[in-house]
Amino acid sequence: MAIRELFDTELKVVNIGLAAFKESLDHCGVQAVQVDWRPPMQVDATVEASASAIDRANQRAVKVILAGKPFLVGMAKALHVVPGMRKNVILHAGPPVTWERMCGPMRGGVIGALLYEGMAKTAREAQALAVSGAIDYSPCHQHAAVGPMAGIVSPSMPVFIVRNEEYGNTAYATMNEGLGKVLRYGAYGPAITQRLKWMEETLYPALQKAIAKLGKVDLKNIIAQALHMGDEVHNRNRAATSLLFRLLAPAIVRTAPDAEQAARVLEFINGNDHFFLNLSMAASKATLDAARDIAPSSVVVAMARNGTDFGIQLAGTGGQWFTGPAPVPDALYFPGFSKKDANPDIGDSAITETNGLGGFAIAASPAIVQFVGGAASDALRYTRRMYEITAAENNVYQIPALNFRGTPTGIDVRKVIAKNILPVIDTGVAHRKPGVGQVGAGILSAPAKPFEEALMGLAKALKKKERS
Amino acid sequence: MAIRELFDTELKVVNIGLAAFKESLDHCGVQAVQVDWRPPMQVDATVEASASAIDRANQRAVKVILAGKPFLVGMAKALHVVPGMRKNVILHAGPPVTWERMCGPMRGGVIGALLYEGMAKTAREAQALAVSGAIDYSPCHQHAAVGPMAGIVSPSMPVFIVRNEEYGNTAYATMNEGLGKVLRYGAYGPAITQRLKWMEETLYPALQKAIAKLGKVDLKNIIAQALHMGDEVHNRNRAATSLLFRLLAPAIVRTAPDAEQAARVLEFINGNDHFFLNLSMAASKATLDAARDIAPSSVVVAMARNGTDFGIQLAGTGGQWFTGPAPVPDALYFPGFSKKDANPDIGDSAITETNGLGGFAIAASPAIVQFVGGAASDALRYTRRMYEITAAENNVYQIPALNFRGTPTGIDVRKVIAKNILPVIDTGVAHRKPGVGQVGAGILSAPAKPFEEALMGLAKALKKKERS
Repeated sequence: MAIRELFDTELKVVNIGLAAFKESLDHCGVQAVQVDWRPPMQVDATVEASASAIDRANQRAVKVILAGKPFLVGMAKALHVVPGMRKNVILHAGPPVTWERMCGPMRGGVIGALLYEGMAKTAREAQALAVSGAIDYSPCHQHAAVGPMAGIVSPSMPVFIVRNEEYGNTAYATMNEGLGKVLRYGAYGPAITQRLKWMEETLYPALQKAIAKLGKVDLKNIIAQALHMGDEVHNRNRAATSLLFRLLAPAIVRTAPDAEQAARVLEFINGNDHFFLNLSMAASKATLDAARDIAPSSVVVAMARNGTDFGIQLAGTGGQWFTGPAPVPDALYFPGFSKKDANPDIGDSAITETNGLGGFAIAASPAIVQFVGGAASDALRYTRRMYEITAAENNVYQIPALNFRGTPTGIDVRKVIAKNILPVIDTGVAHRKPGVGQVGAGILSAPAKPFEEALMGLAKALKKKERS
Repeated sequence: MAIRELFDTELKVVNIGLAAFKESLDHCGVQAVQVDWRPPMQVDATVEASASAIDRANQRAVKVILAGKPFLVGMAKALHVVPGMRKNVILHAGPPVTWERMCGPMRGGVIGALLYEGMAKTAREAQALAVSGAIDYSPCHQHAAVGPMAGIVSPSMPVFIVRNEEYGNTAYATMNEGLGKVLRYGAYGPAITQRLKWMEETLYPALQKAIAKLGKVDLKNIIAQALHMGDEVHNRNRAATSLLFRLLAPAIVRTAPDAEQAARVLEFINGNDHFFLNLSMAASKATLDAARDIAPSSVVVAMARNGTDFGIQLAGTGGQWFTGPAPVPDALYFPGFSKKDANPDIGDSAITETNGLGGFAIAASPAIVQFVGGAASDALRYTRRMYEITAAENNVYQIPALNFRGTPTGIDVRKVIAKNILPVIDTGVAHRKPGVGQVGAGILSAPAKPFEEALMGLAKALKKKERS
C-alpha cells in the first residue's frame, strides 16, 4: 500500500501501551481499540532466588485459607470481646492513620461514634475531643476486626463474633446500618445516634438470642450458595442477606420479647440488602488471619483503605503494612455526582477480594454491572484476569458461569508485580464530605505502590533471615 | 486424498441429520460431533396465506402478555373461589384425561385428595370411589388454575389468588407441599393427609392474614429479581422463595396467633426452596390467560402435561387442546433411578416456559445445570435457541448474562413448525409409581405432535372463518 493510500483510507487502530494515544484518536472520531496490557515489571532478585521457599510457604498459606471454616457464633459489645478495645479507643478502616491525615468521612464517623458513646454532647465537643489526643485511633485489622467504609468501631457497639472453626481464631464486625445517612459514610447527629442506639438496644439482643438458639451459622455455606445466586458478597449481598434472613427469622420470632419487636427486627434486615456485607467481611477476615505469619509467603492476607492510604499485609511479613496513596475510583456515579465529589477509596471491605470474593468473584454476579458499570462480559473478564495473580482456585466458592470453576484465591504479590496486573476491587464510593453518603460504585484497580512496597518488604525480610 | 488414505487416517466425523449415525460411531470409539439441526417442516398453506393477519394477532397477544401485572392478592378454599369447582370435582394437570388413561402419580394424587377430603377412609375405598364415576375430573387449566406434577386440586384445598391487575383476570394455585413423599408426586396416606391438614389449618390462615396485611404482593417484581439471582422460577426457585419469605415474614409475625405458630410457618417455607414455584406458575397463568381468544393468533398460551398426553392451547383457537403422547424425559436421574423408572412428562409447570421463564430463561440460572445436567454454556445455548421460536423479547424478565436481554417470550407455533425447533422445558421427573416421588430432573424437548396439531387446528379455524 502506498503511503498516500494510508491517508486516504479510514483508519482502524489497535493501540498497545499508553491509553492517551487512544484517547486522542477517540477525540478525532477514529475507531480505536485499546489492548489491556502493561509491560511486566522486574521482580526483586532476592525474591527470585528464594522462589521455591516462597512457593512452599504460599502452598501452606493457601491451604490454610481454603480450609477456613468461618461460623457466626455469637454477638457481644466490642468493649467486652474485641482484643485491645478500651473506653478511649476508636477503630477505623485501613492501615494506621492520624486524625490529621484522616479523610472527611472517617472524621465524620469518629465524631458520630463519640456522640453515640455519650463522650460528647455536640459535634463541636466531639471534634475537640477527637483532636485532643485523648482518643486512641487504631486499625480494625490490628484488632481482629473489619469495618466497611470508615469502618468505625467504638466500645459500646455490638459486634458479630465469627470463629474460624478450623484454626480457632476469631474475627469481629459491627452490624450493617443500611443505606443513606449512616456512620460508615461519615454521617453523625441525632438521627444517626438514635439508629445506633436502636441497633444496640433492640436489634442486637434479638440477634444475639437468635444466634444463641441456632448455636452457630455456617457463613461459608451461605457465601457459597450466594455465589450461585448472583452475589459476589461485596457490593451485591441480596442473596446472602436473604439466606441469612431465612435462617434467622424463626429463631428471632421464638426468642424476641414480643411479635412487634420481632417484626421490626425482621423489617430492618429486610430493608437492607447489604446486611450480610459485614459478615462476609468478618468471614473473610477470620479465614485470612489464620494464614498470617507463614514466612516467607508472598500471599496477601489483607487489603484495606482508610480513605487516605491503601495498605496491604502479607502472610510472610507479620503485622507490617505496605502502603500507597488510595486512588479516587473511576466509578458509575449516582445522578448529580461526579469523580470530583468522590473520596479516595475507603474501607476494609477489600478483605472480600483478598479472600477470592468481591471483584475476584464478580463473574458470579452479572447483574452487578447495572450498579458498578460495564457489560456482563466485563464481569467474566475481571474474574478470569484475577486467576493470573492468585496462588489457588477456591475449593468451595464457585462461579457457575465458568462451569463452577473455583474463584481466584490468594493474591501472590510476586505475580501482581511480575505481570503488572493489579487486583480488581468492586467498591462503593463515599462522598468526600462527611455524611453525604454513597455517591457511586465501580470497579477499581488497586494501586501498584503497596504491592511494590510489599515485595521490597518481603525481600528485606528474606535478607534479614539470611544474615541471621 | 486417495480413497485408501481415508481408510488409513483417523476419522473425525461431523454428522448432520439422524443422530443414530453418530451413535454407531460413538459405539466404535470414533470422534463424532452431532450437529443440532433438523430440516424445516412445511407450514400449512392456509396459515401462510394468512401470515399478515396472524402477525397482527400475535402482536396483540404478545402485547397483552408483556403488559400482564400478576399480583398475589389473597387466599381462599378452592371450593369458594375456583370457577366450576364443586364438592365432587378434582382438578388435575395437563389436558383432559379419564381415570382409565391416568398415569400412576396422578391416580395416586386423586386417591390422596379423596382421603384428605374425608370422602374415603382407606386407599381401597378411595380407589373404588375414584373409578365409580361419582368424581368429575377436569384440567386445572379449564378452571383458571395450574398445578405442578399431578396438579391435583380438591375442594377443601386452600389456593393462592393471583390477579392480573392489567386485565382483571385471576389465576389459582395450591401451596407447594415440599419435597419427598408429597401428593403432587402421587403419594397418599396418613402422613400426606396430616401435612395437607396442617397446611389447611395453620399455614393457610397465617399466609392469608399476612397477605391481607400486605394488601398485595407484586409477583412480576419478585420473578424479575429472581432471574437476576440465578432462578429460572421453574426448577430453581431458591431466590424467589427467599424474596417472598423476606416480604411475608414481618406480616406473618404480626398476624399469627402466637410466636410458635409464626415460627413453624416460617420454618415450613424456609424448608422448601420450591415454595415459590406454584406462585410463578399462577403468575404465568394469569399473564397468559389474558391473551386468550385473539384470533387468529398462533401464540401458545398453555403447554401442559398430564403424564399421559402433552397438550397445548393457542391464543387464536379458544379452549381447544392439541395433544400428543407425553415423552419420557432424558433426565439426570437421582442415584438408584433410571429412565425406566420415569413417568412420562407431567405437570402444568410448563406454563412458566410458555411465559418466557423456566427453560426459556435458563441462561439466567447457570447453577441449575448441577441439578438438570449439562454445562453452564448449555444453559446459554437453550435460551438463545428459544429466541428462534418466540414472537417477542420480554420487557421485564431479563437475562443478566446476555447483557440483560429480555427472555424469549410468546411461542409462535408457526416458527416451531417451520424451523423444527421445539420448546425446551426444564422439568422434574416423577417416578411412574405413585408416591415414590421425584427421581430426576432434566431438560426436555416438547414433542412435535401437539404443535403440528395446533397448526392444523389454526388452519381449520382460518378456513372456517373464510367460509362463514
